[in-house]
This record gives sequence, structure tokens and C-alpha cells, in this order.
Amino acid sequence: MNSIKFHSKALVKTIKAKAEDGLQMSEVFLVACGGSLVDLYPAKFFLMSESCLLRTDLYTANEFVHAVPRVLGERSIVILCSHSGGTPELIEAVKVAKAAGALTVTLTYNKASDIAAFSDHNVVYEWGDESSVQNNPMAITLALCLEILQQSEGYAYYDEFQEALQKIDDVVATACKKVSERAVTFAETYRNGKLFYTLSSGASYGHAYGFAICSLMEMQWLHASAIHSGEFFHGPFEVTDQKTNFIVLLNEGRTRPLDERVIVFLKRYAKNYVVIDAKELGIDLLPESVVEFFNPILFYSVLCVYREALAKIRNHPLEKRRYMDIVEY
Amino acid sequence: MNSIKFHSKALVKTIKAKAEDGLQMSEVFLVACGGSLVDLYPAKFFLMSESCLLRTDLYTANEFVHAVPRVLGERSIVILCSHSGGTPELIEAVKVAKAAGALTVTLTYNKASDIAAFSDHNVVYEWGDESSVQNNPMAITLALCLEILQQSEGYAYYDEFQEALQKIDDVVATACKKVSERAVTFAETYRNGKLFYTLSSGASYGHAYGFAICSLMEMQWLHASAIHSGEFFHGPFEVTDQKTNFIVLLNEGRTRPLDERVIVFLKRYAKNYVVIDAKELGIDLLPESVVEFFNPILFYSVLCVYREALAKIRNHPLEKRRYMDIVEY
Repeated sequence: MNSIKFHSKALVKTIKAKAEDGLQMSEVFLVACGGSLVDLYPAKFFLMSESCLLRTDLYTANEFVHAVPRVLGERSIVILCSHSGGTPELIEAVKVAKAAGALTVTLTYNKASDIAAFSDHNVVYEWGDESSVQNNPMAITLALCLEILQQSEGYAYYDEFQEALQKIDDVVATACKKVSERAVTFAETYRNGKLFYTLSSGASYGHAYGFAICSLMEMQWLHASAIHSGEFFHGPFEVTDQKTNFIVLLNEGRTRPLDERVIVFLKRYAKNYVVIDAKELGIDLLPESVVEFFNPILFYSVLCVYREALAKIRNHPLEKRRYMDIVEY
Repeated sequence: MNSIKFHSKALVKTIKAKAEDGLQMSEVFLVACGGSLVDLYPAKFFLMSESCLLRTDLYTANEFVHAVPRVLGERSIVILCSHSGGTPELIEAVKVAKAAGALTVTLTYNKASDIAAFSDHNVVYEWGDESSVQNNPMAITLALCLEILQQSEGYAYYDEFQEALQKIDDVVATACKKVSERAVTFAETYRNGKLFYTLSSGASYGHAYGFAICSLMEMQWLHASAIHSGEFFHGPFEVTDQKTNFIVLLNEGRTRPLDERVIVFLKRYAKNYVVIDAKELGIDLLPESVVEFFNPILFYSVLCVYREALAKIRNHPLEKRRYMDIVEY
């Protein structure tokens, strides 16, 4: 909690100082690429759902740079995340934000990152198996957006959200242990799979996308496509057959019925599908009023167990690349 | 133009009347499912880019219904689109919006649709080969959002946008003729393709997604995945090889460099890729200041020529379904 508390306090101080100068923040831009963009998605969903005063948009960095939103300015908070701290599009994006007079908050794992030079507030986060999920970028961004919301208009479930931030680590650790055998079974069953559809909804849609583009496409060179559970019945489900592979991230919270509807359909018309149920994995220990925003934190860690098992059985290390940081692009 | 002018005028009148009652509209929610959601995407991108006062969010209908945004109320405009006019999730969504006191605008092809009963302003649009693209839901929604923007804060390129709306029909008709042979070549080349990645950016990302989920998955039972051009280099590109199929929608406008970067990479590392270039197809006849918002209108019509050629050679009619409106789900 120390990291979150420290950064939240600093950000609130800055926002308050700006408000005293007559600058009430009016929009939050969340900007990153690939896996880091995925880490910002839950905060986008949280503010989109809960805020009445803040406009929030999520951008892949290069689109933010090339199609700069007209509103970007001194009332904007721009939160940018780059694991390496050196993603060129991200460096450009933070420069664009800074030049427009926005309040810039950067998140990176790299202590020596260049982005800190253009940032009003730089957060160096923890990463890896030994780190606490509270100190990973997803939870930090959620916690920062909680404070932004609280400053902007107050949030009825502020205390419950803080409670959830405190509890999520234990919940995730328990869930990861619980799936260790299941992940091996998954890997054995799907070791020859060439294509996977990943489905989810609510705050977790970003992680359905993230598992597709990072874990499967980037790290395993497997074909993948993320589909929102609510969209499945409006086109995508026509590909369903006994051979197609599906991974469903079943949320706890308001959008659970959307994911459940997909599962009911797959039970009848598909054969190869895996359901990862956040509720069964213990996320319902968090307060009901905010639990839905924490599903993706659980899914990310749990899916890391699945992808490690898959990488092992396929003999394709997660670090193996053929283009990224190898060729020019 | 008559349809657009008629509906724009009516909407402006309602917005002005509300403003006189002290109700300045503050957010626009765009709500639909599948192909209709795709038709709303350009308006989302347009407002996200151009508006300084309006918050705009795009929702698949069932998520809007289950995770109702807290801000939804009498200052919200909710634009909902359903081709059949009977999509259950959409009917629920318009009820939710209405109950919250929002101004509801519905678009449908079905004159006898139930949604009109819950709608403040119902637009029956044209559809099919013989219709003018100006009277299709994509252009109508863009035109309505142009008026909303104009009422909210004014728009420097209002006249250019109107000019583009007038010219887009001819541009699209010319482009469709131009690709008729290319579409046949595409179909012959890719007739045995089992999986396609579709890529684009800016206002057209929605149509990269639409071609994937509607034209390929729903209408051809082919596997597909839409990737934002800006995201390609942050994971997805690791699947690139000499066998994987890509379709790139190359925009004219600010995000063109994002799409071009994908093409440069594919030229080097892929073999099976098709580029559809809106500029080469004549979209640059539209005013430069607004052209980018019109790319998807061209792409949709042009891609219809491609999908028809593909359907013909694969002997898989575009209307063929195995689940949609056939089984229960």
C-alpha cells in the first residue's frame, strides 16, 4: 500500500493546488501501447461508469500523437504507461501532453526512464512474480483514478475501494494457487491449438484483449481475437463449432450476465472452451459495490499461470520474439 | 441530403428547447450491437477528437444496460441504432435511457419498429445497394453529431463537413466501380483463406472491426481479428509470417502514417496482404480538414464489393446463418 498511498497523496496535492489556481481538472486521458494500454483499461471503465464530471478517453499512444484531441490542455490529466519507459510513441505522447499544458502522470518499471523528464509525476512500479499486485500499474492507475474522482466529485464507495485495494493481493495469491493444476490441464488440452477467441466484459474486456495480443500473439505466436461478451451474439458467434477454441473470463459484478450468456451458448454449440470464473476464484471477498473493477487484476495474474503452462508444454519461451526489438519497424 | 437535413433540424430544435429550459447537453452516448455499433464508431471518433465540451462514450447495448453509467440523465443524448429495430438488448437500452430522462435518438431500417415508442426522435434510414450513403446510419449519425457539436460549442469546419456530406456519395460510387475487378482478384487469391487480420486506425478502426465480425465471422464463418494499426507493433505483429492474411484499410488524414507503418512492415515480412487505400480511391476530393472522418463510409461500401466477390467464389451466401435468429441464445 505504501507506493499507492505515496503517489495518490502527491497527485491529490497537485490537483488541489491547481484547483486553488482556478483549474478544475475536466478530463482524464489514458495513453499507452499494447500490454500497458491493457493495464489502463480498468481505470477507463471505472471512470466511464462512476464519474459524472470527468470525461475519460483511452488512446493507443500513436493515435493520441497523430490525432491530438482538441480539448487537450491545462484541465487535462494524462496518465501514460510504458513498461520499458522508452517506447518511442509514448515519449512522443508525453511530449504532446506536456506541450499542451496538461498534467502528466507517467508509470514505468524503468527507474532510469526518459519519460520522467517530461512528466509532472513519475511512478516507478514493481513487476514480476515477487511483486505485490497493488504495486503493479493496473492497481496503481485504478488507485490514482479513484483519487481523481474523489477530488472531482467525491465517490460514495471510496472506503470500499480502498478496502478492495488492500485485500486484492491475498485474493490473487489464493486464486493463482488454486489454478496451478487447472493451468497444466489447459496446456495439455490446448497445446496444439492454433487460434483462440478470448471473451469478457466490463472492466475485464481489456484483459481479454491483452491475453489475445500479448500472451498469445506476441509471446506464443498464436492467432487470437478478443471479442466483447456483449458483442458475441451480434456476429462473432457464427464461427462457433466443435473445433474452435474459446477462453471466457467470467466477471463478478454487473456484467456477469453477459459472460454467462456466452457460456450457456458455448456449452451447447462448442466443445473447446475454458471458463475462468473470478467469483469461484474468490474475488467476491471484496466489497460488492466495487468488486467488478478488480476482476481484471485477478484475471491478469491467473492468466499468467495459464500462459506459463502453455509456453512450457509448447516449448516456446514467453520471452521469444522474432520482430519486437529485433528488426526495424 | 433531405433525410439528414430533416433530422438534423428536428434534433437541433429539441436541443435548443432544452437549452432554453436550462438543460445544456453534456454527454453523448452511442449505443448499439455488432454491425450497428460499427456504424456509430466514426461519430465517437469525431466527437472524441473535435469536442471540448462533450463527453462521448460508445457502448455495446447489453453493457450499457447492465453497467449503466452514473452520469446518464437529462443532460445526456443517447443515440441508439438497430437495423431490425427489434434487437432485445437495444430495446432495453432505449428504455434505460428514457427512464433516466435522457434525450433518445433511435435509428432503424424498420419503419414499424418498437424502438420508436421509447424514442424522442426516431430516424428510419435507407439501406441497400440503391440507397445513397448519405442516408445510411453512419453518415446520419455523423451529421447528427455534427449538429450536436455545433450547438454545444460551434465547429470551425462545419461548412466543410456539410460539403463532405454532399460529396461522399459520388466519391463512394466511383470507388466501388474502381475496385470491382480488384475485388474479384482478391476473392480468387484468398478463397481458401481461413483467418484474416483487419487493420486500420482513426475513424476507420470501427470498420476494421466491423469487417472482421460481420463480413467475415458472421457472413462467411471465417476466423478474423481486428487490430488497431497503432497497436500492431506492440504485440500482434509477432504472428506475421508468409502464410498469415492481412487486410489494411489505409486512411487519408491524420492517422495515415499509422496505417502506412503497418504496410511497410507487411511488405517486408508478410506475403498475403491487401491494402485498400482511401486516398487512391478518391476520398481526397473531400475537404482536407474533415476528410478523415469520412474514410469509414468509403471503406464500408468498398468492402461490400470485396465480401460479395468472396461470398460468390466460396459459394457461401452472405445471408447464410447457423445460429443468428435460428437457435435460442
